[in-house]
Amino acid sequence: MQSDLDRLMQEAELDALLIFGPTSHNAAMVYFTGVRHVSLGFLLKQRGKPPIHVHDPMERDEAAASGLSTRSYHDFDYQKIYNKNGGDQIKTQTELLKRTFAEYEVTGRVGVYGKIELGPSFSILRTLDKALPDVEIIGENNTRSVLMKARLTKSDEEIERIRRMGQITTSVVGDVANFLTALDVHEGLLVDRSGQPVTVGDIKQKINLWLAMRGAENPKGTIFAIGRDAGIPHSAGTDTDPIPVGQPIVFDIYPCEVGGGYFYDFTRTWSLGYATDEVLAIYEDVLDVYQTVSASILPNTPCSQYQDQTCDLFEAKGHATICSTPRTTEGYVHSLAHGLGLDVHEAPVFRAAKENKDLVLPGTVFTIEPGLYYPERGIGVRIEDTVVMQPGGEIEILADFPKDLVLELPRM
Amino acid sequence: MQSDLDRLMQEAELDALLIFGPTSHNAAMVYFTGVRHVSLGFLLKQRGKPPIHVHDPMERDEAAASGLSTRSYHDFDYQKIYNKNGGDQIKTQTELLKRTFAEYEVTGRVGVYGKIELGPSFSILRTLDKALPDVEIIGENNTRSVLMKARLTKSDEEIERIRRMGQITTSVVGDVANFLTALDVHEGLLVDRSGQPVTVGDIKQKINLWLAMRGAENPKGTIFAIGRDAGIPHSAGTDTDPIPVGQPIVFDIYPCEVGGGYFYDFTRTWSLGYATDEVLAIYEDVLDVYQTVSASILPNTPCSQYQDQTCDLFEAKGHATICSTPRTTEGYVHSLAHGLGLDVHEAPVFRAAKENKDLVLPGTVFTIEPGLYYPERGIGVRIEDTVVMQPGGEIEILADFPKDLVLELPRM
Repeated sequence: MQSDLDRLMQEAELDALLIFGPTSHNAAMVYFTGVRHVSLGFLLKQRGKPPIHVHDPMERDEAAASGLSTRSYHDFDYQKIYNKNGGDQIKTQTELLKRTFAEYEVTGRVGVYGKIELGPSFSILRTLDKALPDVEIIGENNTRSVLMKARLTKSDEEIERIRRMGQITTSVVGDVANFLTALDVHEGLLVDRSGQPVTVGDIKQKINLWLAMRGAENPKGTIFAIGRDAGIPHSAGTDTDPIPVGQPIVFDIYPCEVGGGYFYDFTRTWSLGYATDEVLAIYEDVLDVYQTVSASILPNTPCSQYQDQTCDLFEAKGHATICSTPRTTEGYVHSLAHGLGLDVHEAPVFRAAKENKDLVLPGTVFTIEPGLYYPERGIGVRIEDTVVMQPGGEIEILADFPKDLVLELPRM
Repeated sequence: MQSDLDRLMQEAELDALLIFGPTSHNAAMVYFTGVRHVSLGFLLKQRGKPPIHVHDPMERDEAAASGLSTRSYHDFDYQKIYNKNGGDQIKTQTELLKRTFAEYEVTGRVGVYGKIELGPSFSILRTLDKALPDVEIIGENNTRSVLMKARLTKSDEEIERIRRMGQITTSVVGDVANFLTALDVHEGLLVDRSGQPVTVGDIKQKINLWLAMRGAENPKGTIFAIGRDAGIPHSAGTDTDPIPVGQPIVFDIYPCEVGGGYFYDFTRTWSLGYATDEVLAIYEDVLDVYQTVSASILPNTPCSQYQDQTCDLFEAKGHATICSTPRTTEGYVHSLAHGLGLDVHEAPVFRAAKENKDLVLPGTVFTIEPGLYYPERGIGVRIEDTVVMQPGGEIEILADFPKDLVLELPRM
């Protein structure tokens, strides 16, 4: 949680954090400011001190709305520096940071964060690193940074916001199910009242509409992948594809609060009207592993042990896995889960022990999403919920929804 | 245009471009790949050679859909490197880039681009820069980079896509006007049929809905700013505010294609029912400057001359401007315009000559958006269209819409 930050900075021997970029769709910044309408600026957080947000003067009211201490570029003679440097963004920002560091007496190890255009930032920070002998610029691993370690446990308010996004997500998933099952079937494809096949693109546009109606945003798109597409975990599906009965559809949806706040992540695999025995068998393997693994997860245990457990369970059922066949593109080909919050993928990481040492802690929000993929057979099945590890040691699914494979089609 | 890239790389003495990040909401990458569903990877463009997209194996089909040459992480033994480095993202990516550079014989000056989490990228690039004596990593100024110089002129297809976003944008603005003018008025505020005041937040949610209905996305939010908020150019407005008659409302909307493609940018200032003489006078000054300046813009001329012209015109009308009073927060406080494309703000820059040398070229797409701001008097007025400089030397507004200040309220 944010209250752990000073301790985590101490442990990482960081004297300050420097966060760049806008206050929207930028997790590191939004973690401090909330979603605001400040496009230009940076935030300085020194160890043991409250953060300061330095912003463009045109955005002063928006910056102030965060309740943080704010300073305007004007306070550092921005326009004069800008003119002196002939409008050179890199030189201007470097000088602005030098003046800020001088005024706030920033020295030592300074971690840098934020989702921002890489080129100018790289030059600014390299110059700053060379120009200030008392300062060392540190670029941390994303999933192991102090900010990510703080975000590894969520406050009650954060969990509540993710839960609300879960309610929105599952109600849109319910809308999609209702829409699909109300359609007619013609020659094995879903068709509308005029007999036209409904396409994946149609469904995706409705999803965006239904999310917008509920005040959510979908910046990363939706996976609605059928047949061979479903067999490739990150295939988003093909917009022009019609929607057939009796084939597996991987429907993975991961919207966020408007402006880039908290996410939710959710997957169901559906087969419309009926499922083939082959798909049903694979679905049952995935569901069984989902249930076994989610019943095993305990607080303060390494995430990697659940990836190992998932591989063992799938291998016992006769599937290849990346644990024993790292380059396999059939069977179980990804990690079991990932943390979730202001990024859809954040810490903890659920990979093999040799790759990470993250723990599931009380207050950690993460997905559980085993899956099996057989692209050449036109099959993919994944089941995913977002859960929180409660203080009592129980896992809670933040938004429940039926896991059934077959969606009955009354009009088939 | 993209076809200028090899020449521009030559002029900037760049041997290669290295672009990081996802293929959505990431202009530098989307410029090559289009909007796709590839979250992990990088793109290498060597001078005189076609670009190569190196991607996560789970996203192979999505990467291939761009039609570019693609390589999988697997081709460079990614999993082995990852395991050897204990899952350390920075070390793994650094090694992956080293192997890619070796295979493609990348040497010389390599420009780096992409909107991405800063910390790990900074470390990766600093390490690479030190480890490879034949390679120099270059972080260019964003608005002056070779990529931005290529994007300074748009192809017919790009202009068509921006025009289509303009049609979507103005039709949503029309919906908002229709919605507002159909409301009742009670005690000077717009109210719904049940007598409840309609708020700025209500309008913004409808805007997101109406954009989603038309297949657009609104990642940066909307400015709907009333009274004092309108007097601060980048104030987005206050969600809980009711909507009064007879006060200026700055309505600035800048949506993009789904997944982060081309933007449009558009502003009208409305006063509902009637306008005060004070607001009307300021509106007429802004409209007059808009018309005079937009009638003057010629191809192959410096953008700065139109900022100067705008300042001169406003000063002749008795308003302070940032040209003569750089820190003013009253009068004309921003630049006249900005380029627009895959970013809502891109080159060219319309600031004073000492700050930039950009030209308006045939095929340049840019905004024209003079405004006046008097926050203490509760007044802001801005009028903005997105235009293209046509080959014949004429400016074309990409989506026309009435510029009237007063929206009549039949139910007032």
